Order: sequence, then structure tokens, then C-alpha cells
Amino acid sequence: MSEPKGRLFGLGVGPGDPELITLKALRRLREAQVVAYPAAKGRKGNALAIVEPHLAGGQILLPMIYPVTTEKMPAPFCYETAMREFYYSSAEEVAAHLEAGRDVAAICEGDPFFYGSFMYLHDRLAHRYHTEVVPGVCSMLACASVLGAPLVYRNQTLTVLSGVLPEDELKRRLADTEAAAIMKLGTNFAKARKVVEELGLLDRALYVERATMANQRIEPLAEIDPASVPYFAMILVPGPRWEA
Amino acid sequence: MSEPKGRLFGLGVGPGDPELITLKALRRLREAQVVAYPAAKGRKGNALAIVEPHLAGGQILLPMIYPVTTEKMPAPFCYETAMREFYYSSAEEVAAHLEAGRDVAAICEGDPFFYGSFMYLHDRLAHRYHTEVVPGVCSMLACASVLGAPLVYRNQTLTVLSGVLPEDELKRRLADTEAAAIMKLGTNFAKARKVVEELGLLDRALYVERATMANQRIEPLAEIDPASVPYFAMILVPGPRWEA
Repeated sequence: MSEPKGRLFGLGVGPGDPELITLKALRRLREAQVVAYPAAKGRKGNALAIVEPHLAGGQILLPMIYPVTTEKMPAPFCYETAMREFYYSSAEEVAAHLEAGRDVAAICEGDPFFYGSFMYLHDRLAHRYHTEVVPGVCSMLACASVLGAPLVYRNQTLTVLSGVLPEDELKRRLADTEAAAIMKLGTNFAKARKVVEELGLLDRALYVERATMANQRIEPLAEIDPASVPYFAMILVPGPRWEA
Repeated sequence: MSEPKGRLFGLGVGPGDPELITLKALRRLREAQVVAYPAAKGRKGNALAIVEPHLAGGQILLPMIYPVTTEKMPAPFCYETAMREFYYSSAEEVAAHLEAGRDVAAICEGDPFFYGSFMYLHDRLAHRYHTEVVPGVCSMLACASVLGAPLVYRNQTLTVLSGVLPEDELKRRLADTEAAAIMKLGTNFAKARKVVEELGLLDRALYVERATMANQRIEPLAEIDPASVPYFAMILVPGPRWEA
């Protein structure tokens, strides 16, 4: 009789505050023999930093070192190729533990299926191994909470946008929604703020970076220095208050 | 010296599974002298059912009994008026406890600021009392997790829609996004499925009701009897898989 294979858990560990993990993710995290986490070379990564206070001793830590890259690389480099190789090799490393019968908890900042890197492991492995996903508090709702900003009322439409989108598309979509979140700011910040301003939304829009983390920063959107904006920053445009 | 006033906590308790509450919401819940929860008359309500296994003994339970109403009421009844009166009286009851120095945990299924009833308490009370919001796992991401469906990749746009929207608006918005969630189905289900079908999305769209609850149901969208669809059901249209 062959050994049973391990199980794959995709765990949303929440937006940053270690207390914003769910009981279920915590239990699955502690039970797993292997904890896989994304990180830049030589760095710990946000997901591991979030769960570190919760880790059981004696677990195997498996870093998935992502390539330092951007979506606009000079030839012959290619973002898609670099990421494909990264996800391929990460999946193979995780699969080796699963084949050996070890359960793997792949941790993910926020929620695994909301722009999460776990999606690429899932697409490669979920049909081959028992897989369970534990949802988490996503960064967008963490941002709304620390801003004290009810995000979307009643029958309003909420549009979640990537700051990477071209300016005209960002503007068209933002003009056509009641509530919005613009994620992935970083070097896209100046473009996103320009669009917000042109649409007359500067008074309603809110800015926050690293929501619920120790180095969280909330400032008026108009006053932000674009050069200072990290990738983990967000602009929220809450829906107009519904006067119930 | 007057007694200090109580603090208001808006707690997201997650989508249904009591294990999907965060450590922080659990701590705030147990510390509060008063637990306020929305419920229909004579019923417990989902939020209270979720936290019941976690409650400390000796807490004051404050039901906020919402009126049985729909958005299409015959005159002289009016949805807006009924809801306004409900939120007004709920806020006053909560305020009475805060004035008496008691901390109040207002619990909310999912996340407080994502279509949550807490938003109306927040709008009335946050400027008068110390208020803290603890974000929760929202129903949309719980649905994606139990469906095993990565929701939104990379730079895709996600649109969150209410099933209450008129058919033409639902169709226009759904046609103009890569990923979508259609919430608040119930009697709006047939309309929503028709739109999904007309846009050729029936193969990609997924249906789930009461995700992560004991009575969760997942069925192919094409096979659902519209008469059976509860309010807490959702259609997800995951973004096209990004072949990393």
C-alpha cells in the first residue's frame, strides 16, 4: 500500500495585523508539516511576518523566492516568462512535499483568491492533490476599516481596479461606478490620483498604505508624494452614503 | 468626574463558519459587555448564530429587530422609511448602553463595511463615540473558496453587483468586466441567470448558497430552481485564468 499523499491548504492570513487571521487558518497553519510562503530573495515576506507569532515549532519553512521583476522589462527579459518559471518551480517544490505525504500550508497575505499568488499554485496542483482554501480578510476591507469608511451601501456597484490599468481605462471605469478600490499603486500612483482628481472625486477618495500593519500610514490623498508610495497602498472611493 | 463612555466595536464575524472569525473580532466580542445583533422578529439571525459558540457568559444580548419588508412595498408602506426608523431606533438603543459606559460589540455577518448593516450604525454613532471596526472575511471570498475558484487574477477588474439592479444595467456591467460577483439574489435570481446566459457566461459562472454554513449548497447554475434561491446566494464569474 502506498503512503497517502499530503494535502494542500491555501491559507489567507489577512492583511497584516497578526490578529486578523481566522481561527481556521490558524488551525490549518499549525497542523501543517510544511509552511510555504512567497518572499523576495533575502527577505522574509509579508505573509511569513504575519504568521510568525503563530507558528508551531518544528515546521519546515519553504520559501518561494519570486524573481525581482516588473511588468515593463527591457528585452530579452520578459515578465510573463519569469513569473511562469517561478510558479512552475514553486509548484514542483510544493508537490515534492505532497508526494512525500506532508501537508503543505501555502500562506497568502489577504485572501488566496483575491489577486493572491496562491492562485497559480492552485491552478497547477488542485486537480492533483486534495486542496482546501481558507478565505481571509482582504486588504481592501482592511483599508476600509482603518479609514472608518463604509465602502459600499445597499445596491451600489463596487469596482476593484488595478493601478496598472491604462489611464483612459482607469478613468472610464472609475466614472462608471459608485464605489471603487484602486490597488497596486506604487509607481502607478500619480496616474491614479490624476484620474481621481479629473473626475472630481478628490474629496471623497481616501488613501492608506500598509493597512493594519505596524507601519500603516493614512494621509490625505492630495498631500501624498508619489515617490513615497509603496505597492501595498490603496485608494478607496467609498460609495455615496445612503441616508437610511 | 463623569463616567467614561463606552466604546463601539463593529465586528465582522465572517461568512458563516464560526471558525472563520478573526482572533481580533473574537477578542473584542468576548470583552464587550453588550453584544448587539441584527435579527428578524422571533429569529436568532445569522450573525448571532455564528458567534454563539464563542460568547462569554453574562453578556447583555441586544437584538436589533429589523422590519419585515422588501424594496417593493405597496403604498403607503415605504422601504426607506421603515429602514430609517429601524436604524434610528437601533442606534438609540446602542447609544444608551454607550452612554452608560458599556462597550458594545455590534456584530455583522461577513464584513461590516461590505454591504453590512453596521454601516448605518456607524454613520449615526462614530462621530459621537470611540468606534473601532474589525474587518471580516466577506461572503464573496467565502464563496470563491468553497467553489475552489480563483476569483481575480493580476490586473483584472472585479465588479461586485447587487442582483436588485435592473436587467439592462446588470447586463451592461457584467459585459464590461473580467470578474464579477452578483449578490443579493433571492427573487432576483431568474433575472441574473438570464443575463449570464445571454452573455455566454453560463459555462464560467458558478452558483453557491450559504457558503461555509452547515446548509451550504453548490449546484450548477443551469440547474437551479429559481423558486429555491435564498437571499444569501451568489453567482460568481471568475476572471479568465491567467496562464502564468
